[in-house]
Formats: sequence, structure tokens, C-alpha cells
Amino acid sequence: MCQLLGMNANTPTDVMFSFTGLATRAVEHKDGFGIAFFEDRGLRHFVDNRSATQSPVAELVKHFPIRSDHVIAHIRKATQGRVALENTHPFVRELWGRYWVFAHNGDLRGFAPRLHGAFRPVGDTDSELAFCWLMQELAKAHASVPSVEELSRTLRELLPQPAAHGTFNVLLSNGQALWAHCSTHLHALERRHPFGAARLADEDLSVDFSALTTPRDRVCVVATEPLTRHEPWQALLPGEMRVIAGGQTVDAGPCC
Amino acid sequence: MCQLLGMNANTPTDVMFSFTGLATRAVEHKDGFGIAFFEDRGLRHFVDNRSATQSPVAELVKHFPIRSDHVIAHIRKATQGRVALENTHPFVRELWGRYWVFAHNGDLRGFAPRLHGAFRPVGDTDSELAFCWLMQELAKAHASVPSVEELSRTLRELLPQPAAHGTFNVLLSNGQALWAHCSTHLHALERRHPFGAARLADEDLSVDFSALTTPRDRVCVVATEPLTRHEPWQALLPGEMRVIAGGQTVDAGPCC
Repeated sequence: MCQLLGMNANTPTDVMFSFTGLATRAVEHKDGFGIAFFEDRGLRHFVDNRSATQSPVAELVKHFPIRSDHVIAHIRKATQGRVALENTHPFVRELWGRYWVFAHNGDLRGFAPRLHGAFRPVGDTDSELAFCWLMQELAKAHASVPSVEELSRTLRELLPQPAAHGTFNVLLSNGQALWAHCSTHLHALERRHPFGAARLADEDLSVDFSALTTPRDRVCVVATEPLTRHEPWQALLPGEMRVIAGGQTVDAGPCC
Repeated sequence: MCQLLGMNANTPTDVMFSFTGLATRAVEHKDGFGIAFFEDRGLRHFVDNRSATQSPVAELVKHFPIRSDHVIAHIRKATQGRVALENTHPFVRELWGRYWVFAHNGDLRGFAPRLHGAFRPVGDTDSELAFCWLMQELAKAHASVPSVEELSRTLRELLPQPAAHGTFNVLLSNGQALWAHCSTHLHALERRHPFGAARLADEDLSVDFSALTTPRDRVCVVATEPLTRHEPWQALLPGEMRVIAGGQTVDAGPCC
């Protein structure tokens, strides 16, 4: 199973600590990694088909503080699709003059939608196919970029369709919000004032967030499994979609 | 004026030497840099809105040998559009299940095409607008990914339209070929057996390619200005488009 990491903050924040926690799990998930950082409408997108424990690109991400309000990262254990750069999550497309970033943990069987729109997979994963279908259906549902509320309503209708074909834990962002859909495993944590210290679950590394933050900072982290000990991670329910913006959950509930 | 660098090789090759030469010129072209590497259908895309002389991302590219058959790089001196990540070349879109990469040197005035297709600019540069229009027109001209020859014919018809509005030195690749269009400044160099030593024009750095290559390797480099001394760089003619594949020019001639 792959591992997902998403972050949304109300002020640009670096994810070096959380990404280091995720990368520790790359010993098992060795078939590539990727991470995308929104900076306003702009996007930095790093992918490598090597393990995050060995990749010089992962080293850069761990040591270079990229401050972003929306981050999606993924470490891959290949289930469908070869180990190749074009099969490495997260995937990126442009729609309505905004970049969209998508990462998937799970496995879809027999999901073969008709692609008649402007989005085609470059690689051969079930994940990129599901993403292209989602983009196609969003493009059909709205003439131009709708509000986060409207997008969330549409996504609640769309996400159950691929999800019916297997496991579909998903992170999606267009830089305005982070949408998290849980099929089996997804956990969320909100950090806000008063900030304390956090210790990574898999590595002897801790951070005192109170020294790095201001009282008005708010950050929400979503990950396949909790990344830290002694923090109140919440498990998402199967079939739940959360909408995260401004560093907190703004909407949570089951899909249609 | 921005500076462009393109590379196509018949066997995956690193561009650390040429990129170091380009980055030296970033003292003047300080408003960001970007570089995209094709690895088969997959793509690595690095952008930074800081100068290539200061960016840790540029350091990674200079020191980490990424082997690729198609590379497009750009260092930016902003003429239109703010200094922002979303305005940093090269730009990327997907069409027909292939990534397309585009970088532009120059300035367009009054180019305001109607965008009715699936490609919209994320930032506010004339360059990304021209790229989105090109993608839209390619998508209209062909139902699925055509041959390099057919694409080249279509591009020869399309490229003069934005070029009529100003300076339009352009590099475009989909991982199958590199298309170079010259409006004012673009130089090409083919390196093949017997390889010799090359010395950067702006920096005291030389490479002996004969020690790094096999007799069947062929590499074509395209840049705004020659990057090395004592090598036979060829100036492209105004209005010329070159099609480069397999490490050599496969077609060259004026646009329609």
C-alpha cells in the first residue's frame, strides 16, 4: 500500500518535519515518491522513481524549507503500472487556469470509464486514469472555476464512482482547498495555538512547534497513518470526504 | 531578454555542463529559472522564482546527473508578468496522453487569441498564453498524437501567428522531438563522434566529452547564445523552425 501526506495551512508552512516522517516509511514503499507544493497559483512538483530514502530530490525536500499553503506527497509501492517516472504520484493537470494535484492510495479493479474529454493518462496506472476521469467530469459540471462549496458538492457525487471499484484513499488540491477522500485508511490532525512539541512515530526526531509558529497559525495534516506520537490524530470514516482550507476542516461528511 | 537552453540526445544524457553555462548568465536573468527533463514519457519539472545563481533547486540540477533525452531550460528576466512561480518557464500541459513543455524568449504585443479549448494560462505572461493557444490549435488539428512530421507541418503553420506580434524564440518538446523556432536569437550545436573538449564561454570550466561518450552518441544543444567557445555553433535564421530528434536536426526550414 502506498502512503499519502497532505498539508494545508492558513499561512505558508514548510513540511520538512512531516515529509521526513513519511520518507522513513519509504524503506517498504520504495517504488518512487513525489511531492507538490502550491505557492499561490504556482506549483513546485518533484517526482522521482527512486525510493525517498535514496533520492537526492527527497534530500532537497527534507533540507530546503519550501513554504506552502497546500502540499500533497506520496510514496509508492507499485500495485498497478510499472515503476516509471510517468507512474509516480502526485499527478498534475490544468483546469480553468488552475493546477490540480492528485495522489491515490489503493487499488481499483475494473474501473474503465470512457475518456472523451481533454484529459488522458500519460502512464498506465489506475490512479492517473481515475484522476483524468475526475478532471473530465469536473470540467463538464462547471463552466469555470466554481466556489470550494460547489466543487465539494460535485466531488461528493463523483468520488463514489471510482471508489466502488476498490480502495480509493485520495488527496486532491487546486491550491484553494485540500479534498481528502477516505476508503480505508486516512488520518487527520489539526495543529493550532497553543502549539506543543511533536515526536515522529518512526524516527527519533521531534520539533517544538511553539518556537516556530505564531498564535494565529493553523495547520491541518492528513496522512495514511499517524506520523507522530502523542498528538490527537483522527481516523476518517470509510466513505468520508473532508474539505480542508485555512488550516482546518471546513466540511466533513459522507459522499452521496 | 531571457535565455533558453534545449537538449536532445539519441541516448539519455545529462546537461549539468550546459546548465552550469546557462546558470552563469542568471546574474542578469535573475527572475527565476526552470528546467524540464523527459525520461521516456515521464517528466521532471523544476521551477524556482529565485535566480539560478542562488536557488537550491538549481544547485541540485547542477550536481545531480539526471539523464534525459529531451531537456528544456529557461532563465527569466521578467518583461511581462510578475516574478512569481506560476510565471516561471518552462510551462507544462498534457495533450493526447503526452506531456508538452514550452519555453519562450521574447515579448509579444497585442497577441490576444480566443481561448475556447481546454488550455488556460495559470499565470499572466504572454508566453503561457501563446503556449495554451498552440496546444488548443494542435488539439483541433489532430485527433490523436500524430507523427513528428505531421506535427512539424502543423507547427510551421501555427508558429508565425504569435511570432507576428513580436519576438518569439521558442523551444517545445513532447518527448518525441524538440521543436526550435527562431525569431531573433537561437543557436544550435551538434556534438557527435569524434568528441573533443569543450570550454564554457562564461566560466572557467571545461569537459572532455570523449571520455564520457561512446562513438554512437549524438547530442544536439540549442541555446539563445553559444554556451561554449571553439565549437561550431550555428545561428538559426529569423523565421526558421528546426525539428531535432535522435540528437540531430531532422528538418529545418522557414515557417509558412
